[in-house]
Parts: sequence; structure tokens; C-alpha cells
Amino acid sequence: MTAVPSALAIDAGRLWSDILSTARIGAYGETGMNRLALSASDGAVRGWFTAECRALGCTVEVDGVGNMFATLPGTEPGLAAIAVGSHLDTQPAGGRFDGILGVLAGVEILRVLHAAGRRLRHPFTVINWTNEEGSRFSPAMMGSGVFCGVHDLETILVRKDKDGVTVGEALAAIGYRGAHAPGHLPLAAYLELHIEQGPVLEADGSAVGVVSGVQGLCWLDVRIRGTEAHAGAFPMNLRADALVSAAKVVLVAEAVALKHPPGVATVGHIHAMPNSRNVVPGEVRLEIDMRHPEAVGLAAIEAALTADIERLVPGAEVSVVWRKAPVVFDAALRGVIRQEAEALGLSAIDMVSGAGHDAAHVAGRVPAAMIFIPSREGLSHNEREFSSPQQCAEGADLLLRSVLRADELHPERS
Amino acid sequence: MTAVPSALAIDAGRLWSDILSTARIGAYGETGMNRLALSASDGAVRGWFTAECRALGCTVEVDGVGNMFATLPGTEPGLAAIAVGSHLDTQPAGGRFDGILGVLAGVEILRVLHAAGRRLRHPFTVINWTNEEGSRFSPAMMGSGVFCGVHDLETILVRKDKDGVTVGEALAAIGYRGAHAPGHLPLAAYLELHIEQGPVLEADGSAVGVVSGVQGLCWLDVRIRGTEAHAGAFPMNLRADALVSAAKVVLVAEAVALKHPPGVATVGHIHAMPNSRNVVPGEVRLEIDMRHPEAVGLAAIEAALTADIERLVPGAEVSVVWRKAPVVFDAALRGVIRQEAEALGLSAIDMVSGAGHDAAHVAGRVPAAMIFIPSREGLSHNEREFSSPQQCAEGADLLLRSVLRADELHPERS
Repeated sequence: MTAVPSALAIDAGRLWSDILSTARIGAYGETGMNRLALSASDGAVRGWFTAECRALGCTVEVDGVGNMFATLPGTEPGLAAIAVGSHLDTQPAGGRFDGILGVLAGVEILRVLHAAGRRLRHPFTVINWTNEEGSRFSPAMMGSGVFCGVHDLETILVRKDKDGVTVGEALAAIGYRGAHAPGHLPLAAYLELHIEQGPVLEADGSAVGVVSGVQGLCWLDVRIRGTEAHAGAFPMNLRADALVSAAKVVLVAEAVALKHPPGVATVGHIHAMPNSRNVVPGEVRLEIDMRHPEAVGLAAIEAALTADIERLVPGAEVSVVWRKAPVVFDAALRGVIRQEAEALGLSAIDMVSGAGHDAAHVAGRVPAAMIFIPSREGLSHNEREFSSPQQCAEGADLLLRSVLRADELHPERS
Repeated sequence: MTAVPSALAIDAGRLWSDILSTARIGAYGETGMNRLALSASDGAVRGWFTAECRALGCTVEVDGVGNMFATLPGTEPGLAAIAVGSHLDTQPAGGRFDGILGVLAGVEILRVLHAAGRRLRHPFTVINWTNEEGSRFSPAMMGSGVFCGVHDLETILVRKDKDGVTVGEALAAIGYRGAHAPGHLPLAAYLELHIEQGPVLEADGSAVGVVSGVQGLCWLDVRIRGTEAHAGAFPMNLRADALVSAAKVVLVAEAVALKHPPGVATVGHIHAMPNSRNVVPGEVRLEIDMRHPEAVGLAAIEAALTADIERLVPGAEVSVVWRKAPVVFDAALRGVIRQEAEALGLSAIDMVSGAGHDAAHVAGRVPAAMIFIPSREGLSHNEREFSSPQQCAEGADLLLRSVLRADELHPERS
């Protein structure tokens, strides 16, 4: 694939072997993962990460929310760290790549640097963020949110899982309630390698995606009231069928999104009452997710959909339950990734992340960027999630080269 | 309201008093009923019915499925009975009129005949059918179905409620597993007074409905498969959103029914998977109820909807789970009801029953017909179900006059 020689290159087989061997910790089904945040298996894989990084010359620090920072010292004193990372926790029926690839690629870079006896000018840190998935404890992207000051540590430590166990108790149970205060480690730059979790790269035939940012998001709840009635005894022309109204909302949500590319709108949740075959539905509730990479585009989708709902279903109650502004990644880092992809001979496209990532929190504090590799069939949060050994290696090689370039880019930061 | 004199007339206050006093047996909330079939409260109201009818000169027979037959002997030997009836069981959160009115109007007719010292030529029977609602034991219209040979008694006796109690055990527990074989009582005619359970009479301003028959029915299950995907990471143009497809089916079901009046079609049940706001639905199941008073109309709706679903959502799996042919009530009895309504000065319209009734089973065996009175706001199966004292009395008067006419109509039957 690449004709460009490189002094340093990752070992595709070694990276793949790390993916397969650590996937046994919290395995689910044939090829899936169930490694919930702060579970026993999360504790076990954290132990593996600590041991590997220490063996490669790193110090490993843990902060109050359990974020792990494996740092190889730099050659110039006083510089902030260049960091890579992602998360080792998974969904309850998740895959072997989501999050995991970003951390293991960091470990692989440590192996390459260690084998070459090479140090960066900056400290080089591999981060394992606590509870990115949010499956056991809400909110998602918890650890990076605490590190970046988006969430208050004390508030987060008392969040409970469905069994009433707090984050603080779960951290203590696996021995990862660390002493470091949130945000203790100064960062000069942050890079995250992740699987796409969507079908764009595969459909496009591209090797990597240079992620320009994370889409902004707006969540709407819609409540539609009709008149519950006997499905046999109520004539069509006297009905107020809440599900018929809801169907119009579902279709107009799709139509509005198609008119505002690359925006998306999804009605993922529908609840009809009483939801009985022979009763005309008296009430329906919908949950809508809208996203767009630009604030102005997101506002346009929200305005158009809200107006269309009011026009099609007068009296429908529409409420905004969450808004999140789009994140734009660092232009200089994105430029570096693009150049290095070209140097490696990897076909690359600019793309927006539809999903949230730890990098989105970090981008609010320091220059940050992301690299995507293809997901087979766009599948994720699924045991069939798959990226090939070559795809993983290409992403990790691009991450390594980008780190080396970032090490030159940010001499002034400390 | 009526200028036509009648030797016999029901006592509106006495009928209303029976409705209110028996509604205390199994009361639910302020004005509702929870008198499930063969429950302790069903046993109690059956005891009241037995005592009242015996005091009015009737014998009370019970058959093997608990149907109750209170019979006042006729003056001519060898004639089959003229019967009226309905059911005293209710939905778990039902009203005070559905079914109950038809039985209590029969008791009121017994009171009128008793007070006047009047006998019919035929025996006159008031029937309380077991388990019309089907809320505790399936199927609905159980007692009339057994009486008419639609269901086999032995099969029905072993049907279980959700606690595992069989129909036979529940009958024995309240003492209503009778000795008479199904269909033991020869009937010359059957008339049932019932609330409309829909909005047609109220909207039309009519006092009574002369029911021409019961709609035929066809139930479809529809399974739509799409591709489950991340609501943020999956572009609109690459999606196969099962809920978008389902919304098209909901709207076309309404459109098809509107094109085939007076047919109706209802999507009463929808289940989306995984039904999570930020996941594009991968599968949706719909349950559809279609009805039409004529077999040819019902077949046309079914054919049109099935074709439209295939056109709009190729690959959708459509299966028929239940079909029931329309029922047409006896023309002579309908003529009698129409004439007597006119004689009483009651505005009457011909109408089809959208809901099923015990009379639909009976109509397969002997001449049968039904009278509807208005339901406020069309509400039924609801504690707000309401018909006024005057509306109940008008219906009962029409029932009484129709019984007297039927007594003349059917001298030949025995």
C-alpha cells in the first residue's frame, strides 16, 4: 500500500494479537464484548494495560474518576504531553474495536518507540478514559468529561448503576479511584484513532477518515394526543388517531433531514397507548434525534421539523430535551493527518463524526483530532463489529506518524 | 317524547335504580366497573339476577358454561322462547352500561309483565351470557359461542386465566357450573339491547340504532425489517429505517379504509426495535384490524392494503391472523324494531355494529337483532362510559315493544 519509507512503523500482527488476546477479557458470544465500565473485567483489562505500559518504560497515573495516563517521558523538560487514547470499556453486547483500538494502538506506539529506543521531545501519554459508553453509569464520555471540567467529580462519583452501586464504590472495588485531580496532566495535543461506526468509508472505498469534528445534536420529545376509541365502532371520519399523526411526524423528520444534508434525523423511539390492536391509539410519544456538523444547519433542521410538526399535527407537544453544539477539531492537526495519510499512500476523506467521542470533550481544552478506519457494514455496538488487521494497522500507522509530526508542531506549548 | 299510548311501558326510574344499585357489585373508581367473568363479584351479581327473576315468577336454568336463562312460561304450550339478553361481566376498567343494560332491561321487562300479570304466548327468557368480554378468559363471547355450538364445551372448560385457573374451576368456585347441555333451550327469536360504544348516534342526534348486522373482520400482522444503525453515524441516504417504512403502512391503512366506506382499518399496535432514541430502528411490527359490514368490502380492503404494503415496503411480511365473516341480522325483527321505534316517536337510524356481540353468535342459529342507544362521546371500556336514564329507558321501551311484536311474529316456531 505504501511506498513511503518510514523509520518507525507499527507491527500489524502484534497489534492484532493484542486486540484478540485482550478481547478474551470480558468476551461475549463468539466475537462480542461485554466489558462494562468499572466491572471486574474492566478492572482486569486495566491491569493488563498498566503492566504492559510499565514494561515499556511508562509511569501510569490514575485520576479521581479512574482515567489512566501511561506516560513515556520526553526529551525536553517542561513540555506538555502529546496524548493518544480512547476507552477500554464496551457496550453490554458490544464489539472488539469500538474504543479498544484507540488504546491498543497507543500501546503499540509505545512498543515501537521502546523497540527503537526512541523518545519524543514531549512526554507521550496513552490515555484510557473511564466509562465512555455510558451503558452502566450515565452520562457517556464520563471520564473525559470530568478531566475537561465538563462534569464535577463529586457529582459524578455518586452516580448510581441500576443496582444502586455508585461510581465511587465501583472505582474502589476494582482499585482505580486514583489520587490525581481532574485535568492534572497538561496536554499539548490529543489524537484519537477510532472505528467509524458507520458505513461511509466502506461505501466510499477509503482507507481512513480525517475527522473534521463531531456533529451537533438536538433531542426532541413529541407527545401527540388523539382520542382512544373502539377500532370497530368508530367511523374513520370521526377519529383522532394519534398513531396516524405520529406516522406523519416520522415521515416529515426523514424529509426534513434529506433537505439539510449532511444532517440526519431519526425517530428511534415510539410508544403508542394503549397499544392494543383493536383500539384506536389515544396517545403516542416519539423521541427524535437530530444532528448536523454545523450549528446553523442544526438550527435549520430543528426549526423546519418543529414547524412541520405544528403544521401537520396541530397541538402536538414538542420539547427540547438536550442540545449539544458541534465540535470542530484542530485545523493544524487535521492537516498533519491528511499529509501523513498521503505519505503512507492511504486514501483519505474528510468526514464528520456522527457519534460522540472522548476527543469531543478534549477539543474544548486543547488541540485535538481524530482518525477513523472503516467498520464492516457500518456495524457497531454489535458483536459483528469488525475492522480487518490491515485496516487497524493502517489507522495505527497513521496515528504514529501524526504523533511524530505533532511532536514537531507544538514545541511552544508547555 | 312519545304520544303513542302503550298498555305496557317500562319504569325509567326503576331501571336506572337497578343500574346504579348493581353497579356497586364490582365497582371500580368513581363510576367504573371491574367485574371480570366468573370472579367473586360476577358470582354476586348472578345471585342478585337469580333472586330478582325468581321473585318475578321465572325459573332460572344454568348451562355447563354458566350461561343463565331466566324464563317466564308462555301461555301456548310447545313454543320456543323469545329471548332477550346480554352480559353482566365487564372489562377490568369498564363501565356500567356495556352488556349490563341488556340484561337489566330484560329484568325490567319481567317486572313490567309481572306487575301487569301479563304472559306472552311464547316463553320469555332473559339471558345472562358468560364471559362476553374475554378479559379474563379467551375467547370473548365465550358463553354464547358455546350455546351456539361455535366452541366445544370441553375445550372451553380447560381454558386458563393468567393465574392458571380454568374456566371449569372458576365456574365451580362461584357455583355456576350448571347441568344443562349447550343449546338446551329452543329459541324462537333473540333481541339484544346494547350501548353503541361509538359516536355515531350522538353525532347524528338519533335516539336509537337499528342494527343491521356485525362487521366482518380481518386481522393482519406486519413485520418490517430494516437495518439497525447508529442515529448519528449513518447518513440518511444509506439507511433502511424500519420505522419510516412502518409509518407509510400506518398512513396507507387509513387511506385504504377511507376509500372503502363504511370500512375501517386501524393500526392499534406498534413495536419498534430496539426502540432507542439514538438507534435507527432495525425492525418494526404492526398489528392491523380491518372491518367492513360486507364480505366483498372486507375482501377489497384486505386486497388493497396488502398490495399497497407490498408496493411501499417490498419484503414486508404480512400474515392474516384472524378472519371473521360479517353477520346480517334478521330482516323481519329489524322491521319490527324500526316500526316500534316510529310508534314510540324515537328517531332511529340503521347502523352496523363495529364491535362483536353475543347476538352475532346467536344470529347463526335463530332470528336475532340488536338495538343500540347512544354512548356519550362514543366512550366504552372506560369508567366514563355513560348513557342517560332517558336513553336507557327509551332503549328498554323499544326492546319491550319489539318483544311483544316478536311474540306475534313467530307463532310457527317451536
